[in-house]
Formats: sequence, C-alpha cells, structure tokens
Amino acid sequence: MNNLSHDLDKRKNIISNALNDYVPVVFPEELYKAARHLIEAGGKRLRPSVLLMAAQTVDPKIAIDTIIPAAVSVELIHNFTLIHDDIMDADETRRSIETVHTKWGISEGILAGDTLYAKAFEVLSYTKKEPDKVTKCLRLLAKACLHICEGQWLDIKFENNRDVSEADYLDMVQKKTAVLYAASLAMGGILGGGTEDEVHALWEFGIATGISFQIRDDVLDLITPYEVLGKDRASDLTEGKMTLIMIHGLKHGIKLDPSKLTTENEIDEAIEALQNAGSIEYAMEKARELLLVGKSRLSVIADSEAKDDLLALADHMISRVH
Amino acid sequence: MNNLSHDLDKRKNIISNALNDYVPVVFPEELYKAARHLIEAGGKRLRPSVLLMAAQTVDPKIAIDTIIPAAVSVELIHNFTLIHDDIMDADETRRSIETVHTKWGISEGILAGDTLYAKAFEVLSYTKKEPDKVTKCLRLLAKACLHICEGQWLDIKFENNRDVSEADYLDMVQKKTAVLYAASLAMGGILGGGTEDEVHALWEFGIATGISFQIRDDVLDLITPYEVLGKDRASDLTEGKMTLIMIHGLKHGIKLDPSKLTTENEIDEAIEALQNAGSIEYAMEKARELLLVGKSRLSVIADSEAKDDLLALADHMISRVH
Repeated sequence: MNNLSHDLDKRKNIISNALNDYVPVVFPEELYKAARHLIEAGGKRLRPSVLLMAAQTVDPKIAIDTIIPAAVSVELIHNFTLIHDDIMDADETRRSIETVHTKWGISEGILAGDTLYAKAFEVLSYTKKEPDKVTKCLRLLAKACLHICEGQWLDIKFENNRDVSEADYLDMVQKKTAVLYAASLAMGGILGGGTEDEVHALWEFGIATGISFQIRDDVLDLITPYEVLGKDRASDLTEGKMTLIMIHGLKHGIKLDPSKLTTENEIDEAIEALQNAGSIEYAMEKARELLLVGKSRLSVIADSEAKDDLLALADHMISRVH
Repeated sequence: MNNLSHDLDKRKNIISNALNDYVPVVFPEELYKAARHLIEAGGKRLRPSVLLMAAQTVDPKIAIDTIIPAAVSVELIHNFTLIHDDIMDADETRRSIETVHTKWGISEGILAGDTLYAKAFEVLSYTKKEPDKVTKCLRLLAKACLHICEGQWLDIKFENNRDVSEADYLDMVQKKTAVLYAASLAMGGILGGGTEDEVHALWEFGIATGISFQIRDDVLDLITPYEVLGKDRASDLTEGKMTLIMIHGLKHGIKLDPSKLTTENEIDEAIEALQNAGSIEYAMEKARELLLVGKSRLSVIADSEAKDDLLALADHMISRVH
C-alpha cells in the first residue's frame, strides 16, 4: 500500500502540473478562474491516474508524456460535470469550498462548465499518438459524456420517486459515474496499443469498480461528518435522492421524507433507522461484490506493476474512509 | 439568387435528414426530445451549409457524404449554445416556440445542451476522412467552443455597462458568433484538402462575415416585429445588451435605461431615437464594410460554383429581412 501511495502521488503531481499548464488563466480572467476553481481545490485525480495505469498495463514502456493530454482531458470532463451537477442539485459546498455557481452565479457556472468541456476536447487533440487512436478516444470520450448526461437526467427524475428499482439505480449510476472511469481505462488501453480484448477488459473493470465506488460514496455521504466530507452532509437524504440504501430502506418500511429531515437530529435518526434495517450493510456488500467482479475482468491482461497498482487502487477505493 | 436558393435548400435538406439520423430519440426519451426541440423547430443550417461549400471550394469533386458528420457537428454545437444562452438570458421564445428551459426546466435545459455538446464531438468522429484531418477539425471546433464561452461571458458582463467600447463589442461578437462560422469554413477547407493559405482565407472570410451577420442581427432584433422575428422583440434593449447600435446611441446622448423600457410605446420611442441619431444606419454601414472585407479574403481561392455560392450567400445574409 505504501508503494501504491507513492506511485499514486507521483501520477497525481504529474497530472496536477499538466492541468495547470493546459488551463491557463487568460482573458476573460474571471471565467478561467471560475473554471479552475474546483480543479485547484484538489481531488484525487483518479480518472487520469487510471488512464495512465491502463496504458502502462498494456505497454509497460510507454512514454507517459505522450498520453498526458488524454489523462488531462478526462479530469477536465469530470470537473465540468461537477460544476453543472452542483447547479442542478443546488449544492453550496464541495471539497470544503463554495461551489462555482455559489461563488460566481448560475450563468457563470454554466459557462465555467462549458469552458472545461471544450478544453477537454481541445487538450485531447494534443495527445502524441497516431491520429486514428486519438479519434477512437474522441469517440469514446464523447459517448461517455452522453451517458453522463443521461445518468444525471435519470438521477434528477428519480428524486422522490419511490418506484425506482435497484436495476434502475444501477443503470443510472453506471451512466452517471462508471462510464467515465471505464472510458478513462479504455482510452489508456487504446493509446497503449492494447488488443481489443484488453481494451474491453479494462472497460469492464471500470464499469464494475466505478459502480462499486459510487455505492461506497453513497454510504460515505450518509455516515461521514461534514468536516471530513467537505460537502453538505447527508445531501442524498435531504434531497430525496434514490440510492441503493434508500431503495433497500423504503422496501423495509423506513419512512424517508426529505421535508421531515431538516434538523440534525431528524437526519441522525433516519440514518440510524437505515443502519438498523441493514440497508447500509446491504449496499456495502453490493459494493464489495462488484469490486470482485471488476477485478476478475483483468485476468485476461498480463501481470505487471501497473496492473497490480490498478487492483490495489480498486481495493483502496472501496476501503477508504474519505 | 434563384440557383443559390435551390442549392441552399438542397444542402439544408441533406443536413436536416442527417441531424435526424445522428440524434435519434433514445432512452431517456425526454432528454433527447429536449435536446432536439430547437433543431426540429428549423433554422437556416447556415454553419453546416458553409462547411460543405468551403470543402467544395477547395475540392469541387469531394463526396459530400464523407464530410456530412463534420457539418452536423457544427450545427449541434450551434444548437447547444442556443439552449444554454436562452437559460442565461432568460429568453422564453425562439424560432416562434418555447425555449428548452421554459418547456422542460433549467436543470433539464442545461443537460439538453450538454447532450448536444457531446453529440457534436461524437458525430465529428464519424467523418470519413484521414484521421489527422479529423483531429485537426477536433482541435479547431473545441477552440471555437472555448471562444464561444468567452464571448458569452463578455456579453453577460457587458450588460448595462456603459464603458463598453466599439472594440470591446467587436471582440465579444467575434468570439461569441463569428468563430463558429469561421471554424465551419476552415473545417470544410481542411477536410477538402485545402492548402494552409486557402484554409486561412476561409477562416478570415468567416470572421469578417460572421461579425457582419451579427451586427445585422442586432439591427433586426430592434426593427423586426415579433411575428416575423419569432423571439422576444427588442430583447437587446430591454436586457441592456451592449450592441454597436447602443454604443453609438449612448455616445450621441440617447438615454437607454432598460428599467424605463417596459411598455411597447417606450420601446418604440427608444428605437426612433436611435434611428434619428443615425445609430442603426451606422451599424448597417459597419456590417456592409465587413462584408466587403470578408469577400475580398476569398480572392486567393480559385473561382468555382461553390465559391460563387459562398459569396452570394454572404450578400444574401446581409440583405435579408429576417
């Protein structure tokens, strides 16, 4: 785990520096400051990291600098979605700071997101690999963005909708969250010159672990105190979001009415009820299952240091506290 | 002019059919209906048309179907910007129908726009030309999107700001409107295999005529009745937008306070005052000048039917009533 942490930090630093270079603050400066706001606040740089790892998995000798632009592009897409999602969810804090639209305004937030969206595709075009590989990545990334929009649309429509099934939720989360992990991994596989089977395995690993991470995030949203989480606590509960936990809880007779969850005390009681009904443990078990499924997909790929890192990172993501 | 109309209609139909094919209504259906709402309401398909013409200008024998995806992509970007702009400007009608966010809601409008944004880049990847030409177009289109965001940001910041100069306005309009025309033309030039000089000339023609069209649009916004315009009348005046006309009017002592322009009568009086001060004629003269500059840029390109069409279309756009 120590070695993984070290390598993760190394990749994270490379990516953070590249983000800085590729998204300079130019005229009109406030637009670019707004666009960079969440990027500068940190984040795990998980998606670009797994893109680099995936490329190294199929080509251990790949020159990292040739594919840094592609790695930057997936992180930019991730940050664009955060900015727009915060507007739609009316969330005021993220990563312990004000969200973009809270600080700059809604129109400005829409534009800051649109700017990162464009930047992502511009930067992707600087990838120093054969143009046919780059256009394959272009198609994959654009399709991932479509799925993200579909997933976010479903997420909104699922709010306070008690007819949402577990299958509906898993489909929504696959689109909203997992496809961008999966696309990052597949793009790494393509740029590293992987076979179709290898790229497919990386994609499937991404889908399963991506859903697994999101379920874990849903749990964290409930059980983590504000100071650690860095964003509005139990926002899923207070916004009436349908997660695996809520779906399980509702099925087991727990009443979850956002309009009756306004005080800290009421929120604590709802979380305790979900805990007693086994809803939180149910979700965690599902997350662990998906992690195993995901890891098994990588068996078609030859063992390597990068593959070990990918597997260790997946374990780490599910076990992490925040 | 009759021949041009015929060819324009032919190109418009090809593009409208392709738009239909490339943006099918799939699950979740309401998202895609919202995304297609303005596309289905019509529009001149000007940007995709000039992309096709530009390609034919440098390669008269080009097979149109190989570059239709690129043409579709610029129309999708245009429609994405309309959806988001309508949210920011709080406009309720466009093309004589409700705007997307008015019909579906603001979050839904943001997502419908984001969906077309992704679709544009996905469809671009289907262009049947050498991958290096496609990645060149990718970079050009992404950069155009960045400029559009910058231009829209400036447009918002210019509202009710009486310090905005003519140069500020021209810079804003170049970014917000002209670069997408210019990028469409340059993409056509690249895909048609044009030389660097030819692509540059097409770009410059697009910048000058694009600004010219926007100035003409500003004039139309003031002098066209609602039934013909299909959107809120004199919205620039009532929203305090800074156009060449307003900048000229303010410099000549006309008072333009949006809070005092609420009745039809007050709006009519303000327009009359601008007319008497020569502000509208001043803007039209600027539009005509830019048209001439733009047309002269095409002199480096060999004469052809497509070039004649491009020149005739530019003339037509400036002279059009609506």
